[in-house]
Amino acid sequence: MSEFRKDPVTNRWIIISPEFRNRMNIPEKLEEVNSGPIPENCPFCPGHEDKTPPEIIAYRKGGEKNGPGWWVRVIPNKFPALMIEPPLKRRGIGMYDMMNGVGAHEVIIETPNHYMSLGKMTEKEVEDVLWAYYDRFTDLQKDPRMEYILIFKNHKREAGSSLEHPHSQIIATPIVPKRVMEEMKWAKKYYDYKKRCMFCDILTQEKEDGRRVIFENDHFITFAPFAPRFPYEMHIMPKEHQPSFGMIKPSEMPHLASALRDALRRIYLLLNDPPYNFIIHSSLQSRKDVSESYHWHIEIVPRLIKMTGFEWGSGFHINPVYPEEAASQLREVNVT
Amino acid sequence: MSEFRKDPVTNRWIIISPEFRNRMNIPEKLEEVNSGPIPENCPFCPGHEDKTPPEIIAYRKGGEKNGPGWWVRVIPNKFPALMIEPPLKRRGIGMYDMMNGVGAHEVIIETPNHYMSLGKMTEKEVEDVLWAYYDRFTDLQKDPRMEYILIFKNHKREAGSSLEHPHSQIIATPIVPKRVMEEMKWAKKYYDYKKRCMFCDILTQEKEDGRRVIFENDHFITFAPFAPRFPYEMHIMPKEHQPSFGMIKPSEMPHLASALRDALRRIYLLLNDPPYNFIIHSSLQSRKDVSESYHWHIEIVPRLIKMTGFEWGSGFHINPVYPEEAASQLREVNVT
Repeated sequence: MSEFRKDPVTNRWIIISPEFRNRMNIPEKLEEVNSGPIPENCPFCPGHEDKTPPEIIAYRKGGEKNGPGWWVRVIPNKFPALMIEPPLKRRGIGMYDMMNGVGAHEVIIETPNHYMSLGKMTEKEVEDVLWAYYDRFTDLQKDPRMEYILIFKNHKREAGSSLEHPHSQIIATPIVPKRVMEEMKWAKKYYDYKKRCMFCDILTQEKEDGRRVIFENDHFITFAPFAPRFPYEMHIMPKEHQPSFGMIKPSEMPHLASALRDALRRIYLLLNDPPYNFIIHSSLQSRKDVSESYHWHIEIVPRLIKMTGFEWGSGFHINPVYPEEAASQLREVNVT
Repeated sequence: MSEFRKDPVTNRWIIISPEFRNRMNIPEKLEEVNSGPIPENCPFCPGHEDKTPPEIIAYRKGGEKNGPGWWVRVIPNKFPALMIEPPLKRRGIGMYDMMNGVGAHEVIIETPNHYMSLGKMTEKEVEDVLWAYYDRFTDLQKDPRMEYILIFKNHKREAGSSLEHPHSQIIATPIVPKRVMEEMKWAKKYYDYKKRCMFCDILTQEKEDGRRVIFENDHFITFAPFAPRFPYEMHIMPKEHQPSFGMIKPSEMPHLASALRDALRRIYLLLNDPPYNFIIHSSLQSRKDVSESYHWHIEIVPRLIKMTGFEWGSGFHINPVYPEEAASQLREVNVT
């Protein structure tokens, strides 16, 4: 029996419809490949550093800049959607608004090992990737033209990745994206009315209910949201109120690494290394207006279903798996 | 050079970035197959009528109900996301809202020929499909529980189609979907301020500018929107103000068929029969509050690009093709 559910964060309705289960495309078995020869044409492999623009930062012990020896490396995107140089110009044509493509578009190469992935790394390795996110986030938010910074990952071709070598991306934009704007707007309304953070309230309700909680440590909790757009969608949230990823404390980072690694490991094992995206939703630290109402988090969405005209046309999603059931399956995974 | 553009209808920013052109996946050549044997397991082929739920309507000359002889046939979806029978129940759990899955989910089988498609049909055949849309739309909107009716098509597997045989779908829901709600809200604001329909103003500006217009006949115009989410996206709009698809006049239907067939024919020939979705955005006739501000239209989106974490996370899209260029290419197609 299907059901409509409303996500309180975005005010978006979704449909849970177990009838649609045959639309899911889960890889049949886990193909575990952890090493192999360095592909000649992979620009992200060690020894091929000259095939990318010069690095912005790299974590390395010895070795030359733009040479091998790094374990995490950040570079400008060679085919950037946005560029940092030109001054921002806003203009209109009749009823239309536009501006030039100012922004930043960077790539975080997560590991020198072409065959590795976040779901197979150690917690320490995942933590170093998160530190690279943090370093770039806190640096990019100094540019006063930037209104938003989006950190995201596309795992596998079906999730929009164009290169196999494990990498994530950062895009900084002079506008707040619509989805985030909506989240911030609703959370602000909620705060103005209740004088409490909506996300903190969600965490309280999720912990009391328990059915959708998947993992918890001292500082982070992983749960399946009440109205998920996608089957096996997971959210990771700091347990204490924190509006911006840029405000994470050094002592909290190992806990975030542990939670993120755990979540990715669970879908790796349960869903046979499926394509997925994850996205860090965070306000900039300078956004004082939302510092009490917004609460940063990571959204992880396995890509098991193709989008149809229904989703494009309506903006609401049909999800074949109840989050209570997804959470139960994900909890039972023996994370090694 | 990339550019931000804002869609006035949804207030959504998009990025046009020619650098992303290598992300587009256009079929290499047109494979024209117009006939073949009837696949044994296709439930939509003539002679297999017993493999579907009993028909709701069918256009036929003679022949038995639920037997062959039809040229357009409408059936309930065998795996419906929503069902019409139960009474609507709204309820809450703590801060969450939900309701049971009441609604309608129907399939329009567009032709008995498994190998046909709308882009290859005659205008008369397309018109009959549109009449089936109209018949079901006007019937379903009589149910007072239904707040919205969405007619859409998924062409090919990559666009979310699970069956090859040409078909479209109708979903009626007890809520107005988010995307449409936003359109209606912005259009209403615009109307309240200017006392003019926003869509009518867009049409005026598009006709004056001309660069994005692709096709025009007495009653309809096809254009590439100023801020398209997808490469080669097209919108078809009635030239006179008309809030609901249910208000189309019989004399206008052949013109709509001609415009829709023309648009699908152009992408068929230019982009080698790409996967696509189209969606009819329309208010119900009963929505008197938006009758002056809303203007129904068809959105056609070729699916040439995979969605990434950036789109999921931000809700704004990176489109590698300027709509002026897409329109110019689409205009030049020799439509036969």
